[in-house]
Amino acid sequence: MHVQPLGDRVVVKPKPKEEKTKGGVILPDTATKERPMQGEVIAVGPGRRTDDGKLIPVSVEVGQQVLFAKYSGTEFKIDDEEYLILQERDLLGIIQEA
Amino acid sequence: MHVQPLGDRVVVKPKPKEEKTKGGVILPDTATKERPMQGEVIAVGPGRRTDDGKLIPVSVEVGQQVLFAKYSGTEFKIDDEEYLILQERDLLGIIQEA
Amino acid sequence: MHVQPLGDRVVVKPKPKEEKTKGGVILPDTATKERPMQGEVIAVGPGRRTDDGKLIPVSVEVGQQVLFAKYSGTEFKIDDEEYLILQERDLLGIIQEA
Amino acid sequence: MHVQPLGDRVVVKPKPKEEKTKGGVILPDTATKERPMQGEVIAVGPGRRTDDGKLIPVSVEVGQQVLFAKYSGTEFKIDDEEYLILQERDLLGIIQEA
Amino acid sequence: MHVQPLGDRVVVKPKPKEEKTKGGVILPDTATKERPMQGEVIAVGPGRRTDDGKLIPVSVEVGQQVLFAKYSGTEFKIDDEEYLILQERDLLGIIQEA
Amino acid sequence: MHVQPLGDRVVVKPKPKEEKTKGGVILPDTATKERPMQGEVIAVGPGRRTDDGKLIPVSVEVGQQVLFAKYSGTEFKIDDEEYLILQERDLLGIIQEA
Amino acid sequence: MHVQPLGDRVVVKPKPKEEKTKGGVILPDTATKERPMQGEVIAVGPGRRTDDGKLIPVSVEVGQQVLFAKYSGTEFKIDDEEYLILQERDLLGIIQEA
Repeated sequence: MHVQPLGDRVVVKPKPKEEKTKGGVILPDTATKERPMQGEVIAVGPGRRTDDGKLIPVSVEVGQQVLFAKYSGTEFKIDDEEYLILQERDLLGIIQEA
Repeated sequence: MHVQPLGDRVVVKPKPKEEKTKGGVILPDTATKERPMQGEVIAVGPGRRTDDGKLIPVSVEVGQQVLFAKYSGTEFKIDDEEYLILQERDLLGIIQEA
Repeated sequence: MHVQPLGDRVVVKPKPKEEKTKGGVILPDTATKERPMQGEVIAVGPGRRTDDGKLIPVSVEVGQQVLFAKYSGTEFKIDDEEYLILQERDLLGIIQEA
Repeated sequence: MHVQPLGDRVVVKPKPKEEKTKGGVILPDTATKERPMQGEVIAVGPGRRTDDGKLIPVSVEVGQQVLFAKYSGTEFKIDDEEYLILQERDLLGIIQEA
Repeated sequence: MHVQPLGDRVVVKPKPKEEKTKGGVILPDTATKERPMQGEVIAVGPGRRTDDGKLIPVSVEVGQQVLFAKYSGTEFKIDDEEYLILQERDLLGIIQEA
Repeated sequence: MHVQPLGDRVVVKPKPKEEKTKGGVILPDTATKERPMQGEVIAVGPGRRTDDGKLIPVSVEVGQQVLFAKYSGTEFKIDDEEYLILQERDLLGIIQEA
Repeated sequence: MHVQPLGDRVVVKPKPKEEKTKGGVILPDTATKERPMQGEVIAVGPGRRTDDGKLIPVSVEVGQQVLFAKYSGTEFKIDDEEYLILQERDLLGIIQEA
């Protein structure tokens, strides 16, 4: 069982907060700034449909590690695993090794 | 008697909250996140009409299980059965087996 | 004397609240959800005029039973009969027999 | 002396509130609904100018009786007569003698 | 020294409030309605530039008496004379002598 | 060292408030109206890029004296000189001699 | 490990606040104005995708010093270094020597 996102949404498996490994992306907890989070893209929607009927595909792919604003998206659980469903505009960047 | 949705609206029969079967989608009840709900698509509108007069059809079909944000849409009852009428943008994803 | 709606507006004669017949559409009174209402379409405007001068006709017809969000539209009376004037986007669906 | 409306505005002479003749349009005074008002169109602007430079003419004519939302528009007086200047979108419908 | 308005702005010399001559436009002071004001157009900007680079000229001319909503625009003084700079959409109508 | 504005922004050197010369533009300090300010254009961005990729150039030039709403823009200092960076839409007009 | 920005976002390494060198850009700390900040562009997204599918590239380049509003963007850390991810519209200008 899985969730196939609609429109330009993506399903992300968020990285647990405890997992702040050495050299990794550490996300500061400040009052003046939104705190972003990190996660792996699990499923990608077909994209955004424009008024001309054109489909603008989503610019991330399954398996990529993404950075996203903390309070964006909607949480859900499958088999006790937590997921997030987000719109493409809530994704800030792709985390790349080296 | 049934309701034929207008525009890009869909009629959904929400899954009762008690029905949290093993391995199913469990929707957490948290304060910081909107809680999505699950339901079956019962009827689908013709789609959204653009300024060019073009019709953008709805991307879900009758019979599909969908995930939607909890406080979206409008409730109504037919023959004591509860339904929801929602706009396509309130639907987050399609729940698929396997 | 009658009111001819302008733009994409429609005049609706709302169904009295008492009239909750068996098997009909019953509209729950809850705090968390808007309560929709039922009524008959009495008059239909010419439609919405786009920036290209194109006319997008209204997708409901005189005589149809429609579902609409409770606090939408504007009430008026002719010969002691109550009516509502609504924009097309306030109409949720068409109620059909069988 | 008179006021020539700009854009898609119209000048309306509102019907006095006392004048609730038998069989006329009576406008209920309720808390949950906006109360519309009735008046005669006195002057009509050239219309709305789109981004393409196209002019979308106003869909009412001088002499028509119109229904409009109560708190829309701006009041002014000429020779002790009260008038309202409104945008076309504030007009709800045309009152016609059957 | 004068101010040449940018975009679709106009410079208006407001008519003093005391000057409520017989037969003139008198502007009521009510709580429920915005009070419009009267003034003479002193300077007119080139117009609004659309996304296509097209220029939509302003529809009023220098020397015309205009009606405008009271709290719109920005006040400034040149040589102790008070002026207002307004956008075209803040102008309601042109006041014409019979 | 200088700041080259991005998009349709301009850098303005605001005229000191004390400098209210005879015959100059005096800006009233009232509660009901925004107070505009005066300054000299120091640098101009390339313009606004439309969705068609077209560039709409900024309609002011370096050296012009401009009028702008007081609380618009962002302040910065270079070599103890104060500057403002504003968007074109925050500029109200050009102040011209004679 | 680095972050590749999505859309028209850029990654900026903010200049430490202490570093207010002589002749540099000093950013005043006032209540009435947003305080801009200075930083170096580290990575640039592909650009904004329009409804026609066209890509509008970002107008800054890696290595440029940029000015941006203080409370814009989202902070993150890699290897104990602080970065900001911002949208192009949050960038005000490019800081140039001489």
